[in-house]
Amino acid sequence: MSELIRLFITGGTFDKEYNESNGQLFFKDTHLRDMLRLGRNLVEVEVRTLMMVDSLEMDDEDRQLILNQCRKCERSRIIITHGTDTMEETAALLGKNITNKTIILTGAMVPYAFGSSDGLFNMGSAMAFVQSLPHGVYIAMNGRFFNWDNVRKNKQACIFEEIKTSSP
Amino acid sequence: MSELIRLFITGGTFDKEYNESNGQLFFKDTHLRDMLRLGRNLVEVEVRTLMMVDSLEMDDEDRQLILNQCRKCERSRIIITHGTDTMEETAALLGKNITNKTIILTGAMVPYAFGSSDGLFNMGSAMAFVQSLPHGVYIAMNGRFFNWDNVRKNKQACIFEEIKTSSP
Amino acid sequence: MSELIRLFITGGTFDKEYNESNGQLFFKDTHLRDMLRLGRNLVEVEVRTLMMVDSLEMDDEDRQLILNQCRKCERSRIIITHGTDTMEETAALLGKNITNKTIILTGAMVPYAFGSSDGLFNMGSAMAFVQSLPHGVYIAMNGRFFNWDNVRKNKQACIFEEIKTSSP
Amino acid sequence: MSELIRLFITGGTFDKEYNESNGQLFFKDTHLRDMLRLGRNLVEVEVRTLMMVDSLEMDDEDRQLILNQCRKCERSRIIITHGTDTMEETAALLGKNITNKTIILTGAMVPYAFGSSDGLFNMGSAMAFVQSLPHGVYIAMNGRFFNWDNVRKNKQACIFEEIKTSSP
Repeated sequence: MSELIRLFITGGTFDKEYNESNGQLFFKDTHLRDMLRLGRNLVEVEVRTLMMVDSLEMDDEDRQLILNQCRKCERSRIIITHGTDTMEETAALLGKNITNKTIILTGAMVPYAFGSSDGLFNMGSAMAFVQSLPHGVYIAMNGRFFNWDNVRKNKQACIFEEIKTSSP
Repeated sequence: MSELIRLFITGGTFDKEYNESNGQLFFKDTHLRDMLRLGRNLVEVEVRTLMMVDSLEMDDEDRQLILNQCRKCERSRIIITHGTDTMEETAALLGKNITNKTIILTGAMVPYAFGSSDGLFNMGSAMAFVQSLPHGVYIAMNGRFFNWDNVRKNKQACIFEEIKTSSP
Repeated sequence: MSELIRLFITGGTFDKEYNESNGQLFFKDTHLRDMLRLGRNLVEVEVRTLMMVDSLEMDDEDRQLILNQCRKCERSRIIITHGTDTMEETAALLGKNITNKTIILTGAMVPYAFGSSDGLFNMGSAMAFVQSLPHGVYIAMNGRFFNWDNVRKNKQACIFEEIKTSSP
Repeated sequence: MSELIRLFITGGTFDKEYNESNGQLFFKDTHLRDMLRLGRNLVEVEVRTLMMVDSLEMDDEDRQLILNQCRKCERSRIIITHGTDTMEETAALLGKNITNKTIILTGAMVPYAFGSSDGLFNMGSAMAFVQSLPHGVYIAMNGRFFNWDNVRKNKQACIFEEIKTSSP
């Protein structure tokens, strides 16, 4: 439990900021440190920014970079902040290739800079899941967690859900 | 994982509000539902308010009531929001008496109504821990979790910490 | 002073919201009522939404509509919320045509939905200027006010400024 | 209009903070600079903290100090942040003694540190009124302004109101 957590930042809705001069959303700096400070997080973390991109613009090379970083990371517990649009793709690549670590992908439906962001809640969950779930790759969003091989983003409803629900 | 979570509210810093007419903090309504909405929580929860008190004012009877509610609750996963000052006492009473459920006590160092509250982060963590930790009674605060029999509030530093740290 | 204020809404940065499904900013409902509630505004106001547009997309017809509404409005004190990009154009049209009313155009550099918005401060100023300035058409932004015929948006610096500064 | 504004801080609800170790509200630092930054205020101001007290605890000496500071201040436009409970008393002392300056007393019903504070709106109004009202001493709260000799706090309703309303 007192094991150090590695936190990789890749961008996504989480970190979008408002650009006053053109009215567009863009990436400036990550809000991760602000969020951990606000949550008064007491778990030791190492934060490293891998990229700052919209997940719709992530390509195979980007995902390969994330995989390589997770592989060579000496920590066995990793959180990755990620855009929600292709989060399941990155999770699948990691899940097929890494089985000896607990990796949590998380993000936000609304940028942290908005008053109405779900980001802090998600970050709190990710921090808890990364400490308590067995080795595997998971997506953690809005209180729930999903195995990498049974999750999709329902773009209509803007929620993550299981692909196949277990029969009762 | 899709099991319904029971959420008991007992008050605490979490839910303190500002009283304009006398400038004091007081309890009005719980902010739990607002917090779950902001976090876009998708885990099914049943919220029940047991009391709205400062945990310094909780007496044995109050704690017995919480114990009884946890006992007779048909759910095996329970979150309790609680003031931080005597959270460890309530956790101890529950821990000694209930072993077949996962119970998470959580709270906030700063009221949710303040912009600087750690409440949403803690709530996100509690929601995750209650789904992923084995049966037992835990305190979850500021990213960490503690077993009921090895935790104290360091009132000087305003943090929760282990009583005895495991030797290396 | 107790005279009723008319408040016309035309959209602008003020009222932009985050669209979760595509990550773009868009107009849903005005935040004006929320802002007045947060400010605990006690001045009587009548709010009317004329349009909800980005001021870059306002055309002559839109501006004519605003002019007509200001003309036929029976109140002599009017606030207009407006996008900042063409605020000076609308102010000029109104200023050339209306001289018997106090009209304040205001807006925000950052949408109200963002935690970092200047909107509430600007709204407070607009409410004060509309009650205290003599008849005329003004832009009120970031604590300052400008006559309609001596103001421009400095798009580089994202501030409003006087075109010609008075010689000392 | 481009004249420099003097801003005196005396404390009040405006600046109350939450003390985590005892759960009480207290004064630490003023939030005035944060508020002006959030409002992207472009009016030149000189901020000076005179005291940091609850206005219920202000005594004659404190008020005399405020009066002296206003008198000897070389600026003719002054904003004073002040607790609401005795704001009218300080306004009366200033009003009886100073007639050649525009002085605005303002405050907040809810501390700025709370998400639900009216502080930023009031500060926006105060900044506008101080530039646009004729010489005199005024209380500016919640969009309205009152002459020092015709205002009281209605403690039941938590609003400021005129003592005598003008007959129609």
